[in-house]
Amino acid sequence: MASSLLSTPSQTLAPAPATARLRAARPAQAMFPRGLPRRGRALRVRASVAIEKETPESEPPPTFLREDGQGAGSGSVRERFESMIRRVQGEICTALEEADGSGARFVEDVWSRPGGGGGISRVLQDGRVFEKAGVNVSVVYGVMPPDAYRAAKGEAGKNGAADGQKAGPVPFFAAGISSVLHPKNPFAPTLHFNYRYFETDALKDVPGAPRQWWFGGGTDLTPSYIIEEDVKHFHSVQKQACDKFDPSFYPKFKKWCDDYFYIKHRNERRGLGGIFFDDLNDYDQEMLLGFATECADSVLPAYLPIIERRKDTPFNEEHKAWQQLRRGRYVEFNLVYDRGTTFGLKTGGRIESILVSLPLTARWQYDHKPEEGTEEWKLLDACMNPKEWL
Amino acid sequence: MASSLLSTPSQTLAPAPATARLRAARPAQAMFPRGLPRRGRALRVRASVAIEKETPESEPPPTFLREDGQGAGSGSVRERFESMIRRVQGEICTALEEADGSGARFVEDVWSRPGGGGGISRVLQDGRVFEKAGVNVSVVYGVMPPDAYRAAKGEAGKNGAADGQKAGPVPFFAAGISSVLHPKNPFAPTLHFNYRYFETDALKDVPGAPRQWWFGGGTDLTPSYIIEEDVKHFHSVQKQACDKFDPSFYPKFKKWCDDYFYIKHRNERRGLGGIFFDDLNDYDQEMLLGFATECADSVLPAYLPIIERRKDTPFNEEHKAWQQLRRGRYVEFNLVYDRGTTFGLKTGGRIESILVSLPLTARWQYDHKPEEGTEEWKLLDACMNPKEWL
Repeated sequence: MASSLLSTPSQTLAPAPATARLRAARPAQAMFPRGLPRRGRALRVRASVAIEKETPESEPPPTFLREDGQGAGSGSVRERFESMIRRVQGEICTALEEADGSGARFVEDVWSRPGGGGGISRVLQDGRVFEKAGVNVSVVYGVMPPDAYRAAKGEAGKNGAADGQKAGPVPFFAAGISSVLHPKNPFAPTLHFNYRYFETDALKDVPGAPRQWWFGGGTDLTPSYIIEEDVKHFHSVQKQACDKFDPSFYPKFKKWCDDYFYIKHRNERRGLGGIFFDDLNDYDQEMLLGFATECADSVLPAYLPIIERRKDTPFNEEHKAWQQLRRGRYVEFNLVYDRGTTFGLKTGGRIESILVSLPLTARWQYDHKPEEGTEEWKLLDACMNPKEWL
Repeated sequence: MASSLLSTPSQTLAPAPATARLRAARPAQAMFPRGLPRRGRALRVRASVAIEKETPESEPPPTFLREDGQGAGSGSVRERFESMIRRVQGEICTALEEADGSGARFVEDVWSRPGGGGGISRVLQDGRVFEKAGVNVSVVYGVMPPDAYRAAKGEAGKNGAADGQKAGPVPFFAAGISSVLHPKNPFAPTLHFNYRYFETDALKDVPGAPRQWWFGGGTDLTPSYIIEEDVKHFHSVQKQACDKFDPSFYPKFKKWCDDYFYIKHRNERRGLGGIFFDDLNDYDQEMLLGFATECADSVLPAYLPIIERRKDTPFNEEHKAWQQLRRGRYVEFNLVYDRGTTFGLKTGGRIESILVSLPLTARWQYDHKPEEGTEEWKLLDACMNPKEWL
């Protein structure tokens, strides 16, 4: 089961397309029935994923890549993607510490896995501006069972590999950056972003079978109150990044975002969207590497001006309680629907990195319904009926 | 798909065994892949469950049972079970209001479904003693696809029905009471209990095929701090209730409880256990009705003395923060693992009733590890290594 892909040490690596398709094909493993006795479940999971336990490291290594010809100095997409996400992690953490302005610093946890790969979690907690801010990067080497690969190839099929009926397990590589930023002020929105790159090795026993690769990611905004100026600014930066590459990207990825961050049991989106894409391989690989880089580099210009404007906005207890209720919804989405989180939990990733996305505090109030026409109601309405902001 | 069973208006009706087994057999419906676009998912769910929207009622009807020969006045197990859970709901709410002592009252929501069945949710929020207390009953009539019935019968097989290869959808009946009580004081434990009865109709087109039935339920305690006197009292009341029926019940159901309330990704139990059972049909039906009644009647004697002792215990901010962290774990268990909750969410039950189990407030702190030997560490240790309390 491609759950090994999902067993990433952080939320960075929500399943690439292979795994989404795979789940339909082989549900018994990734989606093992919860009704089974615990031991039965654990066995199933163990049988389907092979994730190594992480080892803490005292400081970040120059690279998490293996020395396999695609590692340091090779100029491979893997290498350039790892460089990019580590650069962006550093830049964003520095900028957020400065915005926080309290002297609070990101605490860093570094780990590696014996067979290659590893990650860096950085978390700033209880700052002046930020209640909880996590920025993680991770690199995973894993093995995908052959039917996962076939399922992926069958539907993606774009690279036209020869059919590997007899193929053995398919090694894959995945790298990503993931972040959730929860500010304290109820008028300052939560931000999430996540950019990832996924690659399988070429099949050794199937001559001519090419390497498969995909990009995925997105950036989205979750305010408790709609301040149009902010939401428009955020979306316009996303659109600018998209437009540099393809005019169809923003409308397509904006809709994909509204569809993905959907809390089905509430008929609400988690927030006011942004962009989201997955399975992206039907463009030039260099172009998509450039696009993912542009998106990641757009996080600060999209978000920081909003934080600067709202971090000191006066608020009262009702504003805070509403923010806490919306954070409850954030928890519901992440624990119930988010692919990276749910599969990370099931497959033994680094729990603290996976759940750093959850807010410091959240609230569930029975049958809370904002009065029609209030600011709270307007937010809820926009979560139920996604709007065009530009 | 037996998801219709799961699409109950509250947590009361966590899947009876048929559905647990069914999930392994037909996972594509109940466990639809999250990776599909939202509309695809919604379609799959709609295709597999047929739950009617609930209608609010101004007051509780004398019975939620259909007039089908097993309803009011029939003396059926269905009728007696419904009477029992409604009596217990009333008694517990009255006792909790009294224990709260603030004048806060349970707010009642009643609903019915056009084809029969309905429920009563009672919630007391922000009292003096209780932060959030929900006590729900519900009655559901649903239809289970034939392969769900076969899957259930195949593994349970105890009633030896003729094989209904050609059987159509199997109507079922389910009724239950479910409750989660979250006190404010960090030294006063959270309590959960849930008792349910499940029955299929006899197959009309398979002569001689009997009615299938099961009981399920349990009562468990989730403290933030171990006060041995309280935990022992709680478990001893559970054991007394069990011992009246079968000396094997307490040890068996105590272990089942430890196994069920397992937060796999944390390697922790949610709390300090109690009793839990499901699929119970291999005893006399009258005996099991008596047992479920005894268990439900043991809730107040097991819990109220603890609340009386701890509701005014002095505490500080650290105690409260630890309680909030443990409530975060409660949320993790309920949203990620609990059968009733997860399937209720996926199949369109009454959301506010399902999620009334979540605490008013919860907290997630990055990489929080209690210092060895502290009271917080002792609780965590007991959650990781379940103990015998008696």
